[in-house]
Amino acid sequence: MGCGFRLPLWLLLAGLGLMAQGMAPRTRYEPNWASLDKRPLPRWYDEAKVGIFLHYGVYSVPSFGSEWFWHNWKNLRTPEYVQFMQRNYKPDFTYQEFADDFTAELFNATQWALLFRDSGARYVVLTSKHHDGFALWPSKHSFSWNSMDVGPKRDIVKELAAAVRSVSDLKFGLYYSLFEWFNRLWIDDKLHLLMQHSYVDQKVRPEQLELVQEYLPEIIWSDGDWEAPAKYWKSEEFIAWLYNDSPVRDTVVTNDRWGMGTACSHGDFYNCADRFNPGVLQSHKWENAFTLERSSWGQRFDVSLSNFMSTKELIKEIVTTVSCNGNVLINVGPTKYGTIQPIFEERLRDMGRWLKLNGEGVYGSVPWLYQNDTETPNVWYTRGQTAESNSSITIYAFVLDYPYDSNELDIHPLGKEVTITRNVHLTGLDFGTDGEVLTKQTTKVSMLGMDNTEVQWRSNRNKLHVKFPPKNHLDKRGLDYAWTLKITIT
Amino acid sequence: MGCGFRLPLWLLLAGLGLMAQGMAPRTRYEPNWASLDKRPLPRWYDEAKVGIFLHYGVYSVPSFGSEWFWHNWKNLRTPEYVQFMQRNYKPDFTYQEFADDFTAELFNATQWALLFRDSGARYVVLTSKHHDGFALWPSKHSFSWNSMDVGPKRDIVKELAAAVRSVSDLKFGLYYSLFEWFNRLWIDDKLHLLMQHSYVDQKVRPEQLELVQEYLPEIIWSDGDWEAPAKYWKSEEFIAWLYNDSPVRDTVVTNDRWGMGTACSHGDFYNCADRFNPGVLQSHKWENAFTLERSSWGQRFDVSLSNFMSTKELIKEIVTTVSCNGNVLINVGPTKYGTIQPIFEERLRDMGRWLKLNGEGVYGSVPWLYQNDTETPNVWYTRGQTAESNSSITIYAFVLDYPYDSNELDIHPLGKEVTITRNVHLTGLDFGTDGEVLTKQTTKVSMLGMDNTEVQWRSNRNKLHVKFPPKNHLDKRGLDYAWTLKITIT
Amino acid sequence: MGCGFRLPLWLLLAGLGLMAQGMAPRTRYEPNWASLDKRPLPRWYDEAKVGIFLHYGVYSVPSFGSEWFWHNWKNLRTPEYVQFMQRNYKPDFTYQEFADDFTAELFNATQWALLFRDSGARYVVLTSKHHDGFALWPSKHSFSWNSMDVGPKRDIVKELAAAVRSVSDLKFGLYYSLFEWFNRLWIDDKLHLLMQHSYVDQKVRPEQLELVQEYLPEIIWSDGDWEAPAKYWKSEEFIAWLYNDSPVRDTVVTNDRWGMGTACSHGDFYNCADRFNPGVLQSHKWENAFTLERSSWGQRFDVSLSNFMSTKELIKEIVTTVSCNGNVLINVGPTKYGTIQPIFEERLRDMGRWLKLNGEGVYGSVPWLYQNDTETPNVWYTRGQTAESNSSITIYAFVLDYPYDSNELDIHPLGKEVTITRNVHLTGLDFGTDGEVLTKQTTKVSMLGMDNTEVQWRSNRNKLHVKFPPKNHLDKRGLDYAWTLKITIT
Amino acid sequence: MGCGFRLPLWLLLAGLGLMAQGMAPRTRYEPNWASLDKRPLPRWYDEAKVGIFLHYGVYSVPSFGSEWFWHNWKNLRTPEYVQFMQRNYKPDFTYQEFADDFTAELFNATQWALLFRDSGARYVVLTSKHHDGFALWPSKHSFSWNSMDVGPKRDIVKELAAAVRSVSDLKFGLYYSLFEWFNRLWIDDKLHLLMQHSYVDQKVRPEQLELVQEYLPEIIWSDGDWEAPAKYWKSEEFIAWLYNDSPVRDTVVTNDRWGMGTACSHGDFYNCADRFNPGVLQSHKWENAFTLERSSWGQRFDVSLSNFMSTKELIKEIVTTVSCNGNVLINVGPTKYGTIQPIFEERLRDMGRWLKLNGEGVYGSVPWLYQNDTETPNVWYTRGQTAESNSSITIYAFVLDYPYDSNELDIHPLGKEVTITRNVHLTGLDFGTDGEVLTKQTTKVSMLGMDNTEVQWRSNRNKLHVKFPPKNHLDKRGLDYAWTLKITIT
Repeated sequence: MGCGFRLPLWLLLAGLGLMAQGMAPRTRYEPNWASLDKRPLPRWYDEAKVGIFLHYGVYSVPSFGSEWFWHNWKNLRTPEYVQFMQRNYKPDFTYQEFADDFTAELFNATQWALLFRDSGARYVVLTSKHHDGFALWPSKHSFSWNSMDVGPKRDIVKELAAAVRSVSDLKFGLYYSLFEWFNRLWIDDKLHLLMQHSYVDQKVRPEQLELVQEYLPEIIWSDGDWEAPAKYWKSEEFIAWLYNDSPVRDTVVTNDRWGMGTACSHGDFYNCADRFNPGVLQSHKWENAFTLERSSWGQRFDVSLSNFMSTKELIKEIVTTVSCNGNVLINVGPTKYGTIQPIFEERLRDMGRWLKLNGEGVYGSVPWLYQNDTETPNVWYTRGQTAESNSSITIYAFVLDYPYDSNELDIHPLGKEVTITRNVHLTGLDFGTDGEVLTKQTTKVSMLGMDNTEVQWRSNRNKLHVKFPPKNHLDKRGLDYAWTLKITIT
Repeated sequence: MGCGFRLPLWLLLAGLGLMAQGMAPRTRYEPNWASLDKRPLPRWYDEAKVGIFLHYGVYSVPSFGSEWFWHNWKNLRTPEYVQFMQRNYKPDFTYQEFADDFTAELFNATQWALLFRDSGARYVVLTSKHHDGFALWPSKHSFSWNSMDVGPKRDIVKELAAAVRSVSDLKFGLYYSLFEWFNRLWIDDKLHLLMQHSYVDQKVRPEQLELVQEYLPEIIWSDGDWEAPAKYWKSEEFIAWLYNDSPVRDTVVTNDRWGMGTACSHGDFYNCADRFNPGVLQSHKWENAFTLERSSWGQRFDVSLSNFMSTKELIKEIVTTVSCNGNVLINVGPTKYGTIQPIFEERLRDMGRWLKLNGEGVYGSVPWLYQNDTETPNVWYTRGQTAESNSSITIYAFVLDYPYDSNELDIHPLGKEVTITRNVHLTGLDFGTDGEVLTKQTTKVSMLGMDNTEVQWRSNRNKLHVKFPPKNHLDKRGLDYAWTLKITIT
Repeated sequence: MGCGFRLPLWLLLAGLGLMAQGMAPRTRYEPNWASLDKRPLPRWYDEAKVGIFLHYGVYSVPSFGSEWFWHNWKNLRTPEYVQFMQRNYKPDFTYQEFADDFTAELFNATQWALLFRDSGARYVVLTSKHHDGFALWPSKHSFSWNSMDVGPKRDIVKELAAAVRSVSDLKFGLYYSLFEWFNRLWIDDKLHLLMQHSYVDQKVRPEQLELVQEYLPEIIWSDGDWEAPAKYWKSEEFIAWLYNDSPVRDTVVTNDRWGMGTACSHGDFYNCADRFNPGVLQSHKWENAFTLERSSWGQRFDVSLSNFMSTKELIKEIVTTVSCNGNVLINVGPTKYGTIQPIFEERLRDMGRWLKLNGEGVYGSVPWLYQNDTETPNVWYTRGQTAESNSSITIYAFVLDYPYDSNELDIHPLGKEVTITRNVHLTGLDFGTDGEVLTKQTTKVSMLGMDNTEVQWRSNRNKLHVKFPPKNHLDKRGLDYAWTLKITIT
Repeated sequence: MGCGFRLPLWLLLAGLGLMAQGMAPRTRYEPNWASLDKRPLPRWYDEAKVGIFLHYGVYSVPSFGSEWFWHNWKNLRTPEYVQFMQRNYKPDFTYQEFADDFTAELFNATQWALLFRDSGARYVVLTSKHHDGFALWPSKHSFSWNSMDVGPKRDIVKELAAAVRSVSDLKFGLYYSLFEWFNRLWIDDKLHLLMQHSYVDQKVRPEQLELVQEYLPEIIWSDGDWEAPAKYWKSEEFIAWLYNDSPVRDTVVTNDRWGMGTACSHGDFYNCADRFNPGVLQSHKWENAFTLERSSWGQRFDVSLSNFMSTKELIKEIVTTVSCNGNVLINVGPTKYGTIQPIFEERLRDMGRWLKLNGEGVYGSVPWLYQNDTETPNVWYTRGQTAESNSSITIYAFVLDYPYDSNELDIHPLGKEVTITRNVHLTGLDFGTDGEVLTKQTTKVSMLGMDNTEVQWRSNRNKLHVKFPPKNHLDKRGLDYAWTLKITIT
């Protein structure tokens, strides 16, 4: 006899997980921060270093101002937004009516996934629901306000999850906004001083469970938490379930936006604020989430080139973040058509080409004793992870500025031979001793991307003077964003 | 110092109600049919007799086929609906996308209310939410799928309730569909064999409460119940609350659609099936809900004149229903523009003119011993309600067919005087005796609308022979739908 | 061997026409009124009596106010139009943008033609282009502003012409507006004080020729002429071509709107003003063009029942017009969906039922010596056309008011026999003598629709007293709009 | 007394022109090529060298495939276009219906003009009307199919002309397509084997005159000519008017697309084919019109980075074109929103930065004896224009490839000093002699952008060996697209 019920994938996986754990008892976490904070960070996240953030939603239809369009227009009544609507839409047009034009007709998840792979990213985080409440999957709890019922008529979360996982080994995470600016249940809970939880019970929790069970995200990137304490959101209960019983309990990581005061305090990694990049080592794993288009996370057409980070700035952001124990989450806003604009693609492909040659110092690296050079500006360090059996140390120095020789640049008289120094002086290799170690013959210095040919260097106490090659391979490839010196001390 | 909390209107009213009852203990009903069925019918409903039903919603945008458009198109895949969409809309167009074109720009609740008043109706029932789930009020539980967020951007329920109550003393009721064809929570509950109640708990009950507390409807016209038992819908609990504690507990009436098997069994009045008109006396109060446009309750443009009931048919429906203890609920489908088409208006105004002259036999009447005449076809009876102190009996006989004299009609030879009989023979006045009572000199017979001038009659045992006036006042006014004889026996 | 060139239909027809005329030399008309006015009226038009006018166009999309929507909104800036647009459309919305929503998805020319046939009409006139310039055919001279390029994507003129001609023997005519409110060529010609004719040469004339040659209209119903003289429009040249050389030269009729001052002066029939109905005999054939919905020729949704003529008023309009040598052109405004609303259909079908019984006195009739009765109000006459060999005369008297007997109506005392007179007194039969002729035994009087049974009459000098039948066949059929007496004097 | 007539600007200018010429009789051209070809090229055009081409129109709404969307979809029925429409639009959607969504809400002509100025361009050519017939100005001859009546509701031509002329001294030209794929007049003329000229007389000529008289374009960039001979288009007449009597007769230049066979034969400058870049000197002034996005001239969203020319490729295109006596016309396709996408902006600003340093060798230059170096690949020459009194010669050599030293690149052994040659060998300076002239002490060689500091060189017979500076100023500024050597021989 047959049975009409299909066992859901997540249940099957959870079951297998239980079997797999049969041997060793699993730690169970209590729904309180003291317990939850003890959970070790899944290793994959620390090694991944580079992620892509996608803000994709109905705001890409007006594509004006930012993804906070609705709030700026209706709550703040910011003049430029109000005027934009007055000039271009009928008087009673509502934000929800943008949805029908969120067509995504050119959306091809596989194309996106291939681009992200080529960019060198190791994970992708998609806004499953932003503050406008629009769900990019057919949420049971958001009838008619999701990407299956209106607009794309597609399960964007599902398509992208599948593509990201199939074309490469990228991890897939989901951003989820706890609050929704205009959800009447939420507004009603606030009117009741958050003493009732209708919104959490009827909307947030059911959707969180649905997302995890349907799409098995490796990251839950929570947001929109700040108007209520974690107790209101019942965040501890949710995270405990996530760690103990969810189908992704072994791999999932969460950020730190779970209620007033949780930022920079709780969660697998800390986002602290948007574009957080402290410049100094952080003891707890953190993530620098920033956007290539400086003024908006969502795509907008009222943008000019000056709003975009250059690739050089992007590489700098990566290097400075990774050196300090952070990951980067680089945001891209796709168009309502479902495309990623060429200017974004250019940045991502440039980054990918650079990471292809220089990624050795990024992925899987750990912070070095020093994060940046105290003497030579714009030089940042990481250390390679080494097998325990190996006594050698590998240090990567990312040189962000080419050491132009002032002679060469300023005076170039006819026929006169100049001494071109073009040296970079590294002082961040001090092991606490007088630096003698650096003079060892076994020390090797090379530049990544130069086919392992070594570069000239000499040491002077605890300084290492490295002579830069002139116009070179990297330049020829158009990768003059940063140069990575690899120093191996055996 | 002040307090920011406003006491909701319904709570205030409920409180006043409690105080008012301080003296006499109110009957409380248990949440089971045995108890609920004992509640007496609020008197106003039985006296009102004539109501207007409004099917207004997103289906008025395609305005094709019927208000079951979505179901016919997507669930049944009825070819004509599928083709209509294929020919006229883009391939992935969804029903929800019709909503933006549900503009209601000409909607004027006061105009509607005035028309309903002039039609002679005594109550109005509006589809607050039909099977498509679209709410005509800003439901907290139907974000973006309601008339405030998309389409009209107006609280249709509120506007109409206010207008109906202010321009006249009409009662205002709300239709509410329990199920929603495509609500994923409901579908999920069904997949779980109705062993879970997520849809009822998260959607139906909250909305029912919201509607009652916000709009104080005098009728809850439930529908869409038939796929689940009342226990699933928790209908008994809801009705008990409605009778015991709701702000409308003293006046509200409900119909009988509360779950499989409740039709014709439970509820303040029975609708049984659509267009139910049994033709024989019903012991329990009932209502004949029918639609002027025979094939659809919602407005549609693929309609021709032949689909509309004539006023004569409408009057017949009223007379035959009221005679058998029923009310009529006459349906009209407004356009997406918010207008009621002239053909509907014509029917309603004709009805209003007829009721103005003949309503005495309709409103507040009660069934007579006989409902229709067994000998003369198309004659129906009601009895006037009389004060207890009054020993006279008033009987109304509605004559649907003018008693054309066959001589007169078929042969009209030049110069020949014909005997015009034009009599109608009433046999439904038998009191169980030999009819002598009718020969009493005190018996008076008049025709409504004829300024109380009496008409010729003679009795013959238990028959009353009434001579009809020829081409007369009623004809001149164009009211030859039915003639009402008033027989008073003192 | 084959030839790729298809001979146009009109050329073929013209050729045949030439052959047909081989025997008798055809009169050629000069392009001046003196000559053109001599052309005899094609017989079919005088006999047809009843036509249907259709105002169908982009104005049916806003369906607000009237078909002069654009002019009222943009030229006059009438507040209600301006506000309607401000409230419901985006700020820079243009009239042209309505066109995409002029979908006509339910347009079925055959259904329309059947309805017109059933209405008793004998010709149909369609607005091929109204003052907004929108062409209902794929005009070569109105790219993108015609029903093939935008909106319906159909050749409305072609479809309707074919249907009207195939389902019945109705004639098909085309309304064509000379001016276009916002055509820049026209505006430019006006700025040049009409001393240049760019608009006529590049737009009007090419389109007039195209229409005639493609669709062979039997009526050219010109309009929009009043801002320029006929010389500017070059109307005389066009009409001369129409009479002399066009493929419809034998059957076509034109109205009188060909330039300032031509109204009521030139053309095959005179429209004079809209709704022209002088009430007295006109020597030149004329046409009463009026609209069932009193305030607008185009369909609009901001309409109520009170705006519609009743069928009784419609029949009166027909009778009073035909008696005075006019035709009626009854206007109907279809919806943007391509449907004719039920209220129009009801009027047309009622008219059709009435004409079926009473048409004998309408179609093919000629004016009688008297148009209406000087003594009995609301009685109008026509005379039947008789073969020359026949010496009898048939006169039709249309009685618009039923001759209610005052006794009968006002006093109806119980049991009292009243003398019912119900006579109508006809005085319009005077032949200039003392009326003796009427007393001849050969005079016969019957009522149309009564199966030729005669009615009682007596004569008194030059009056004919006819006794009306009471509640009768016509009443039973709901046709109490007007009663036609047929008086045959041999 | 006052006069209501304003004298048109062009008439005034023409008048002034006449006065200005009072002294010297102006050459008049006959309307035949023999005469027209004698007209000298207005000097500004040859000196401008770099222009921006804008393809802006309704095709930016589907933004799919290319600006030939309509043709590919409807005439060729190219599957990918047909499918795109089938999947995303309703069945009978027409190209014209795209127009309403051509909103241009972010169009700011001044912003565009500033960008073009910064790009180093000296003229701008806008598609006033492409093959779809849509006019970007309120054409009197294209009612409802222009940017004032639908879509932007703006006179794009006017706004851009004003902005381009006010923010800088750029010249402004208008592209105008002679044929229109779907214009019924044009199709009809073709059906008549081009023996009739309705389309030219009623559409093309009036619009050409309107454009010239209203907007005074300095370039008439004709296109869409190839299906008919110049005689059909009456091109010679038009150009004669343009040269003799038009308000721009002194400054206007035209291209060579005036009918079958005119390409590369007649006109002020030759475009020959799209992307024409012959690589050898052309005796007649020509223009290389090409598009930054290789596959489409109009903007489209189904594009990826690989479709865009890099800035390096762009600079190469300029250098190779100018060396051979051509101008470049660089095409950009703005979005339907009225914006120029950042990827275009990036290319244009990069070009502008490069031209700012290197433009001395581009603007106002003339071809040198040699166009490119026969020995060293990718070196191209121009010659500076010199005053007659000056006997010195200035030659510019554009080096497209940096002369990487193979030693340096391939072998970089630790500690070994290599001889870095980094020389470029120029052989294109041969004056027909043995090159001794180059050895003169007065010869000076510098690199543009290096602050006039001279570079090392030595001559060997007719070769000039120039030593390139290493990683230098230009690199630092990210301008390593091409290096310009300036060789001055006194």
